[in-house]
Amino acid sequence: MSAEFSLPIRVYIEDTDAGGIVYYVNYLKYLERCRTEFMRALGTDRAAISDEGWMFVVSSLALTYRQPAKLDDQLDATAAVVAVKGAAIQFAQSVKRGSSCMVEGDVTIACVDRVSGKPRRLSPELKQQLEARMQNKETST
Amino acid sequence: MSAEFSLPIRVYIEDTDAGGIVYYVNYLKYLERCRTEFMRALGTDRAAISDEGWMFVVSSLALTYRQPAKLDDQLDATAAVVAVKGAAIQFAQSVKRGSSCMVEGDVTIACVDRVSGKPRRLSPELKQQLEARMQNKETST
Amino acid sequence: MSAEFSLPIRVYIEDTDAGGIVYYVNYLKYLERCRTEFMRALGTDRAAISDEGWMFVVSSLALTYRQPAKLDDQLDATAAVVAVKGAAIQFAQSVKRGSSCMVEGDVTIACVDRVSGKPRRLSPELKQQLEARMQNKETST
Amino acid sequence: MSAEFSLPIRVYIEDTDAGGIVYYVNYLKYLERCRTEFMRALGTDRAAISDEGWMFVVSSLALTYRQPAKLDDQLDATAAVVAVKGAAIQFAQSVKRGSSCMVEGDVTIACVDRVSGKPRRLSPELKQQLEARMQNKETST
Repeated sequence: MSAEFSLPIRVYIEDTDAGGIVYYVNYLKYLERCRTEFMRALGTDRAAISDEGWMFVVSSLALTYRQPAKLDDQLDATAAVVAVKGAAIQFAQSVKRGSSCMVEGDVTIACVDRVSGKPRRLSPELKQQLEARMQNKETST
Repeated sequence: MSAEFSLPIRVYIEDTDAGGIVYYVNYLKYLERCRTEFMRALGTDRAAISDEGWMFVVSSLALTYRQPAKLDDQLDATAAVVAVKGAAIQFAQSVKRGSSCMVEGDVTIACVDRVSGKPRRLSPELKQQLEARMQNKETST
Repeated sequence: MSAEFSLPIRVYIEDTDAGGIVYYVNYLKYLERCRTEFMRALGTDRAAISDEGWMFVVSSLALTYRQPAKLDDQLDATAAVVAVKGAAIQFAQSVKRGSSCMVEGDVTIACVDRVSGKPRRLSPELKQQLEARMQNKETST
Repeated sequence: MSAEFSLPIRVYIEDTDAGGIVYYVNYLKYLERCRTEFMRALGTDRAAISDEGWMFVVSSLALTYRQPAKLDDQLDATAAVVAVKGAAIQFAQSVKRGSSCMVEGDVTIACVDRVSGKPRRLSPELKQQLEARMQNKETST
């Protein structure tokens, strides 16, 4: 995988609103689909981690909306790891149509215990995989 | 409660699509909100039954769409019990704007075990409450 | 295209509910994505028809839910034309996981004027294409 | 109206995900419902402004998620105007359950032309109303 992970997204009518554009909330679904496929590519799918008693939750996000996407648009959602902490991962993410940017910003997800909701340290394996992706980024881009 | 339970619903931008009308899928959310409030009025809320190890799932539905609702519309979702079986409840439901009907039809929900997914008989108390509502219907409407 | 059109669908967290399964309403999104891609394969995408001043709306549906799908499932949504009328198309549709059926039933969509909302006859070209698909079905399945 | 506008929100099954909590994306719907009712209370509903050829779009947001809400929770979404610019309004917003904060942060919306998508200055009346709300805030809180 290259440093920036990318997932193609088709805009369906379910994604739009009466303004004739993609409802701003739905870009967050695109961003999460991309993070999910990124984690799956690393071998960490959500069903698996759920069985192990933990889950990822979004702890913060900061997004800027640049321009609207429309029905039938073919978009790309992107995700790149920018920081790995004890129990959290920070991603730089975007949704693009070709070279045009619809939305961009940062999303931080935290690893928490499924029952207590308390933070839980990332496994060393996952931490290592994520850091390797960051090093890739520095050297290959 | 009268035989037909009714819940006011405001149409927000989240409910609409690029056709400028309420996205047809979202009426099903309105119908479920109404069933949920109906069950809550009977003293059976979803969090409670989840703790008891069962849940309701929709087993079938048949809906006819009559006319579209629009942004900012003030609607009413309705639900009336039409049949109570061992592990299932059939509702006649609608979404209306004043006397105009947007959507109407039948929705059947089944009581299932939360883990196995197998049908589970309604409790005698709930069955009795639901049947009382049906009797209300026959006599009072 | 074969008589039954099929679209692969991945289940994301956005599609699930607190029951731990796909929220029953969201299957309707899958069914519509499939109809949309079917129409696109016929050369009739929604953005195009919107420019021509008409749109498709769902006029009725009847669905039976057989079993639940879960997070990360890889599903297939299917659509087959079963009837073509003056201003309406009836589809037999399903959502499957391998050979297991999650949901199946009929969905009828109507062609309406975008402004007045009144029924509008299908173009002869589209009608012909849809009927050819039905003939395929009869002869090739 | 007091300086902070508040809207009660009930959590329905549609709002939850397989983690058993409110899906993080859906809080943004709550926040928008609150902004919508705030604007309606000022006499500026979305249907009206749509007829005048403009609309509000979200231009940026920054949110921190503090703790999860659950099925059947009774929440309050809040909105307070913190800045009024030529074509934009910045809100401080939150979703709370009693005194517990689920989500809080800033959301900026921009007034744009419905067709061109270009920024459009707020009407003097609306600007004045919004500023009055800010002054209220300074004096009354």
